[in-house]
Formats: sequence, structure tokens, C-alpha cells
Amino acid sequence: MASQEIEALTQALARLPGLGPRSARRAVLHLLKKREGALAPLLSALEAVDRRLATCSVCGNIDTSDPCSVCADPRRDQRSLCVVEEVADLWALERSRLFPGRYHVLGGRLSALDGVRPEDLGIARLVQRVEAGGIDEVVLAMNATLEGQTTAHYIAERIEQFPVRLTQLAHGLPVGGELDYLDEGTLAQAMRARRPVA
Amino acid sequence: MASQEIEALTQALARLPGLGPRSARRAVLHLLKKREGALAPLLSALEAVDRRLATCSVCGNIDTSDPCSVCADPRRDQRSLCVVEEVADLWALERSRLFPGRYHVLGGRLSALDGVRPEDLGIARLVQRVEAGGIDEVVLAMNATLEGQTTAHYIAERIEQFPVRLTQLAHGLPVGGELDYLDEGTLAQAMRARRPVA
Repeated sequence: MASQEIEALTQALARLPGLGPRSARRAVLHLLKKREGALAPLLSALEAVDRRLATCSVCGNIDTSDPCSVCADPRRDQRSLCVVEEVADLWALERSRLFPGRYHVLGGRLSALDGVRPEDLGIARLVQRVEAGGIDEVVLAMNATLEGQTTAHYIAERIEQFPVRLTQLAHGLPVGGELDYLDEGTLAQAMRARRPVA
Repeated sequence: MASQEIEALTQALARLPGLGPRSARRAVLHLLKKREGALAPLLSALEAVDRRLATCSVCGNIDTSDPCSVCADPRRDQRSLCVVEEVADLWALERSRLFPGRYHVLGGRLSALDGVRPEDLGIARLVQRVEAGGIDEVVLAMNATLEGQTTAHYIAERIEQFPVRLTQLAHGLPVGGELDYLDEGTLAQAMRARRPVA
């Protein structure tokens, strides 16, 4: 019924998480009817992000600059490093505003089931960063899942040879909980109560 | 935390109907991580629509061509005209694939409360189309709301002078509707419009 272009836009939106075919159609209609107020801002925002999208060569964050805005911020504590599985987890922790240091994004978690091995993750780069010195504390902020905790244990073994304090998020996290889905209060609690790795 | 550009994109998405701040953030993350698979197609689809977006000068539909794809389709029955309040209604009817004719989009409904008068809607253009001849049937497909039905009555009065058959959508039980869950208005309509069992 609608033109090819509108159909293509609907399908592109419908593939976003949280939108289905029906809500995508509603969104498209909204965009078409509010060309100046909705379509134009979305288009220019997408263009701006697309033009400058980069993966941070320091920490693995996705941002519009490299190094990313966290790594480039001189106010961030360089002596504190927080290791997360995914970019989404970094964003979730940033929303809690409790961690003053920098991050290291692994890009996943160890998984025998999915065939993800240590060399598939940014673990070697992490060890390099720690080995390079200047870091006092490494916070292991993996998800409280079996695979997340396996990953944390593996990293702890690789890092314990270096003179850094290894901590992990307090287990105020509900079992099976994933960082990106948690409310900021719980995350803040977990960050505040972080403790040394036994 | 994230860069200005990413923040702007999140906000533009969060303003779409059906997306809030949280789901917009997830959508942005998805776009950033799937640059080729998600961001690029969405960007080019938006550009294509933005470049060619037009309001159909015949029927008022929003499309990427003028006349729109419905009006330009030679297979559509030119003798049958369906009047709807909004473009969304036209799209909904097109999805049902049951109406073979063309449309007329009013761009709203008469409303004393919102100060919408006949001259604010595409009613004069509708009368012109009917007056020009070649139309056998006008289907009044207004919403089954007070304002929709007021609008339908008003249009019926303006058009009844012309030699066309005026019809309206049947009112009654929705498919799958259970009596126990339906409002009294719908039930009353369905009872009033009851018809012989075939």
C-alpha cells in the first residue's frame, strides 16, 4: 500500500529492539506527519552519529570520538579501571554516576556453549593495560550470571600477579540479573559495596 | 556520559510513539553495534523518505510521490471514494485489502472542544471531487467516536445533493470480541443493527 521507501523505513524501524511491525508503523506515521519536528531531527542525529561513530581504541566503548568521551575526560580517575562485558553495561554504570574511573569493555563473556574463548574477548588488551602500570584498582563488573562470574574468575587469575587491588561488584545483584536491565539504585548500591576478590 | 551526538539520537528516538528513554537507549546501542546491519539501512531509508516526502494533492495521503501510490494506481476503482479522518486510517484500511477504490483524507475531525471547524478539514476539496462527477459511492469511514460520527453527519449533509450512494462502515462486535468485555455502546449498536441469520 505505502511506497517502497516508506515500507523500507518501516522495516528498518521494526528491526530495532522494543519495536515491532505495528509500533514501527505508528512511528513512521509520526515521522511523516511531523517532518520538521521529528523526521528532520532524527535524520540529522543519525547522520551525525554515523559520520563520527568509532570504537574507542583504549577501552572498547562505542562513541563518536576515539578515544571515547570517558577515556578523554581528564577528570576521570586514571588509577581505577572497571571491566565490563558489553558497552551497554558501561552505559548502565555511567548512569549510576558512582564510578569515577575508566572502563575496559570485553565485548562479551566466556561461554563454552557459544564457543567464546579468552582470545575472543578483549582480555589480552586488559592485561596489557594493567601491566603498563598506573592502575591501583580493577573492578570486575561482570553480570551476575554463571558465564559472567566465570569470566570474572578467569580475569582475576590473569591479573592477580600484578600489584593492583581486584574488586568486584557487591552481590546485591539479583541472581541471573543483567546490568543493563537493573535500576540505577541497585547498581549504585552494588558499586558502593564493591569488595576485594577473595 | 555518552557524546552529544549519541545523546541527541537517543532523544530523537525517545520522542517516537511507543519508545521511551529506556527503550530508545537500547535502540541506539543496537544501532551503534550494528552499523552496517541496522544504522546504515535506517539512515538511508530515512534519507529516501525525507527526500521524496509529499502530501498527495488529490487525496491528502502522505507518500513519497504526488499523486500518491493509491491515487496513481490505474487498477484502483475510480468510482468509489472512501473518506477517512487521518492518514493512519487510510493505512489501516489498506492493510485490510478490502477497499478497491480511492481515498479522501480529511486531516482530522470536527470538534467543538478543539475548535476544529469544517473549513479546517479537507471537506471543500471532497465536495469538489464529488461534484466533478465520475464517483458512484462515497464510504464515510470515520471513527466510531462522537466527533467522528458528527463529522460523518456533516459530510453526509454536504454530499447528499449529488447523485452518489453514501455508505458508512458497519458498527457492531469486533472480530473476536466477547460480549462480556464490550462496552455498552458497542453492544447497543450491535443489537440495534442486528440482521437476519443467513
